[in-house]
Amino acid sequence: MLNIQNLDLKSEIVQLLEGALDLSEEAKQVLTECIPIVTFPKGHILLREGQVSNESFFNIEGLVRKYYMVDGEEKTTEFYIENDAISSLQSYNLKIPSNHYLECIEESRLAILSRERERELFEKVPGFESLCRVTIEEELGAYQDKQAQFMMSNPEKRYTDLMQNSPELLQRVPQYHLASYLGIKPESLSRIRKRITNR
Amino acid sequence: MLNIQNLDLKSEIVQLLEGALDLSEEAKQVLTECIPIVTFPKGHILLREGQVSNESFFNIEGLVRKYYMVDGEEKTTEFYIENDAISSLQSYNLKIPSNHYLECIEESRLAILSRERERELFEKVPGFESLCRVTIEEELGAYQDKQAQFMMSNPEKRYTDLMQNSPELLQRVPQYHLASYLGIKPESLSRIRKRITNR
Repeated sequence: MLNIQNLDLKSEIVQLLEGALDLSEEAKQVLTECIPIVTFPKGHILLREGQVSNESFFNIEGLVRKYYMVDGEEKTTEFYIENDAISSLQSYNLKIPSNHYLECIEESRLAILSRERERELFEKVPGFESLCRVTIEEELGAYQDKQAQFMMSNPEKRYTDLMQNSPELLQRVPQYHLASYLGIKPESLSRIRKRITNR
Repeated sequence: MLNIQNLDLKSEIVQLLEGALDLSEEAKQVLTECIPIVTFPKGHILLREGQVSNESFFNIEGLVRKYYMVDGEEKTTEFYIENDAISSLQSYNLKIPSNHYLECIEESRLAILSRERERELFEKVPGFESLCRVTIEEELGAYQDKQAQFMMSNPEKRYTDLMQNSPELLQRVPQYHLASYLGIKPESLSRIRKRITNR
């Protein structure tokens, strides 16, 4: 039974990467061993404020949010869906306590890359560090655009952008998290939704 | 005369990197050849909307801003000071037309890394790709935090954060660019400044 599970896990993480990398059997083995896939229940906290982040995640299935506690209130600033990388890089890079939380708001199946394993993979899997560089560069590019769009928009524009770009997110995320993400009260989100429906 | 200039340029780019990399003489030569340093006049446009970005910059001395044209109005979303990397990664990575401009708002001395040269450097300078990965990871970490702070703040909070974190920027940036960056009209910025001074 364990063997079959291992085979499944192996094929999943290897399947994710073999399109991008030319993997030897040894590399496949190392990847399978070094990048475990774990299913976390809904409500599980992956990282707490004050904790140092020692791992990054890749969302295979599920939904994770990032939030800050500000004067006793949760402020959601990010949602991570399937195929999103989930990282808290200021804490991870500088080894300083995180200033935010990461929470699974659906049951989530995540690939986990820890600090120690990362180094091992860079050494043992040819091309893996290059792939990470390219992936992070793409992520930074997406961030640069997203931040600029956010700066130039207002809550209603942000909501209609979400409708256009991430309609499935609107179905999956509870309204109070969504309002927090848009920087408004749930009542204001209701008003925006009504205005849009009535157009 | 040219030789002396070349020596100066060589030492500058090599000085920047030799703290982080163990550089052979050959590597120093390649770095000097592949990463030219150019002084651009105030007002020079490094990248235009519609152009594909084929290079990234590193700000050695000067001030660059990123702006979008929205309904005929310039919206500034970023300032780059000394030691900042300047990149338009969505355009660079995906080879799509840029949706924004990059402009030198002071005379600026920038190191230029082009797409073709990057590949050459990764091949010829051991450790250079690793250094780029780490640098981009750090930049992404700073972005993640900055974006979250921006989402949770208002223009006055953003202004006082700038006063605290980048006081020299407030001295160097024209007020109308600063107001645009904060997402407000110049009159509102004047009111915020007055309020803060009167406290």
